[in-house]
Amino acid sequence: MHSPAIWPRFAVAPLDRSLAANLQTKIDGKTKPPGSLGRLEALAMQLGQIQQRLDPSLTHPHVLVCAGDHGAARAGVSAYPQDVTWQMVENFLAGGAAINALAGQAGMQLVVADAGVAHEFGPRDGLRNMKVGAGGTANYLEGPAMTDAECALAISRGAMLAREFATTGCNVLGFGEMGIGNTAAASLLTHCVTGLPLAQCVGRGTGLDDAGLARKQALLAQALANWPERPCAGEPGADDALRILARYGGFEIAMLAGAMLAAAEARMTLLIDGFIVTSALLVASRVAPAILDHCVYAHCSNEAGHRLQLDWLGGQPLLDLGLRLGEGTGAALALPLIKAACAFMNEMASFESAGVSDKTTA
Amino acid sequence: MHSPAIWPRFAVAPLDRSLAANLQTKIDGKTKPPGSLGRLEALAMQLGQIQQRLDPSLTHPHVLVCAGDHGAARAGVSAYPQDVTWQMVENFLAGGAAINALAGQAGMQLVVADAGVAHEFGPRDGLRNMKVGAGGTANYLEGPAMTDAECALAISRGAMLAREFATTGCNVLGFGEMGIGNTAAASLLTHCVTGLPLAQCVGRGTGLDDAGLARKQALLAQALANWPERPCAGEPGADDALRILARYGGFEIAMLAGAMLAAAEARMTLLIDGFIVTSALLVASRVAPAILDHCVYAHCSNEAGHRLQLDWLGGQPLLDLGLRLGEGTGAALALPLIKAACAFMNEMASFESAGVSDKTTA
Repeated sequence: MHSPAIWPRFAVAPLDRSLAANLQTKIDGKTKPPGSLGRLEALAMQLGQIQQRLDPSLTHPHVLVCAGDHGAARAGVSAYPQDVTWQMVENFLAGGAAINALAGQAGMQLVVADAGVAHEFGPRDGLRNMKVGAGGTANYLEGPAMTDAECALAISRGAMLAREFATTGCNVLGFGEMGIGNTAAASLLTHCVTGLPLAQCVGRGTGLDDAGLARKQALLAQALANWPERPCAGEPGADDALRILARYGGFEIAMLAGAMLAAAEARMTLLIDGFIVTSALLVASRVAPAILDHCVYAHCSNEAGHRLQLDWLGGQPLLDLGLRLGEGTGAALALPLIKAACAFMNEMASFESAGVSDKTTA
Repeated sequence: MHSPAIWPRFAVAPLDRSLAANLQTKIDGKTKPPGSLGRLEALAMQLGQIQQRLDPSLTHPHVLVCAGDHGAARAGVSAYPQDVTWQMVENFLAGGAAINALAGQAGMQLVVADAGVAHEFGPRDGLRNMKVGAGGTANYLEGPAMTDAECALAISRGAMLAREFATTGCNVLGFGEMGIGNTAAASLLTHCVTGLPLAQCVGRGTGLDDAGLARKQALLAQALANWPERPCAGEPGADDALRILARYGGFEIAMLAGAMLAAAEARMTLLIDGFIVTSALLVASRVAPAILDHCVYAHCSNEAGHRLQLDWLGGQPLLDLGLRLGEGTGAALALPLIKAACAFMNEMASFESAGVSDKTTA
């Protein structure tokens, strides 16, 4: 039975908008036509309000990649075998994955957490052992993927990590994931939270062909049918959202949701990656709606359903490069744009200070 | 009278595509689902072919900002007074403009060239004096903006700069501009080169209101009417494109066209900014069509007509952030994406080297 008492609580304050006018005056005073830096100006406004400063800056940017395995992966929802999850974690640790290259390029500290990979890594440099379940989640085709207690533990451990980053001075946190089968879990979460038809929420993941996609669709429809007492799809309350997360989620998704909530609580800027990370945000946003004020949507993934998630959240992605890799790669690619927004706020002269004539009234 | 002999010549070779298969094999062997890095994979392919290497890299990136004044600006085609051109050049030299902040952020060397600003700067650190005309161009409402000799000189000086950068080891060059009135010139060039209706090629520039836009439209229609012997609009040959450039262009636009042609000749990657820079490319592409193989389109500007230019060129922008500032700001923002494309090619492990299982055949 569901026990509400066990869920961790988060105090995410709505954005304090009292600096908005001062920020806008500063932005408009820069030596450029008003509005001509487009989305960078909106980013500067958002960061200024998150940080409550006229000179927002990024300090100690991190990207947290949570990895976990999914019981349902063995039912055939992915183009890749489940072993790829632990193999890719090894690849992260060896520095050979896409996120290693892109986080390095962006100057982000990469932190890899084992949320519940079905593999024993042993003590390893560079891997945070946060295992909630040693064999991955249970198969949601047969029952809940996690117990409520496991789900709450994953959330708490994610929150613990974000709080730890905050103590190092980190004020911007990107999110990434690795877990064979986790687009399937994300599809179920997306359907249940948004109420969008399941078929629109299911995509090819790492590269299913048409037959594989049809099989995934059928399995996920079955996963819904197998939980008849599930909350109505669409805009669940906090506790229902967490029940949905426990039923269909992955340990890595729950850990990401917890990390996001704690990061927003700590007034960080949250850099949201692709489809799976956004499914964690969908859940987190039911727990603390004000979290969305802290989010920057890094990119629009090629995975079917990500654009729908963003539209549902009212989020506008910075990049649209046809990525569908996960690992936080989109977040790492978007970081330089946020840095640029801070740079123009802090380094550009004003019309007045530079002695540049402002717009004519003609 | 037009004298074809004076135009500088450029030998831009079509891209050597012989490495394509090897590049694709390397890209597909990286530890990620095939195609999952989206546009970054296409960038890696393009850079590999430009540089003729399986390990493309960016060395000594520069952004060249050419500034010039326009005789037609005094007729009222801009929301800002002409003095803003030299004032903004001073702002570049003082480090206070948007491009200073963004080029610094991107690690690009900024070079500012005076192509013909109506102001005497005197010898100044950090300013390349390349003045073709000390008072800016003539007013194209009354006659040619430049003589053919002036236009050729501007092209040659731009080419000289690009060749100088090449000797320093620079293999990627962004382009930017400053010149009150230059969106008007770019509109005329765009109409004449693409054949698109003039009205679709004219936008608000730095921020004209509706009345200002109508006035700009009428003036530019007049500028076309005042040159009845102009070449038919749409796909001019090289010499006609250069005649059009001389009639309506700016010194800074001609200098950019020359710099682009020489940069492509030197096998650099060209990072194309917004509407005005793209109008220079439109002309350059009539002189040496193979230049387009070297171009990366940094962003889609908010200036009306830029999307149409890109579509006409078959160019796909990397960013779409509502920028309309010029100065090469879009190019600076896009550079990290190209760096990321090189990083994944050079730093990621392969499935084989990392011991990661490839896709199942199921």
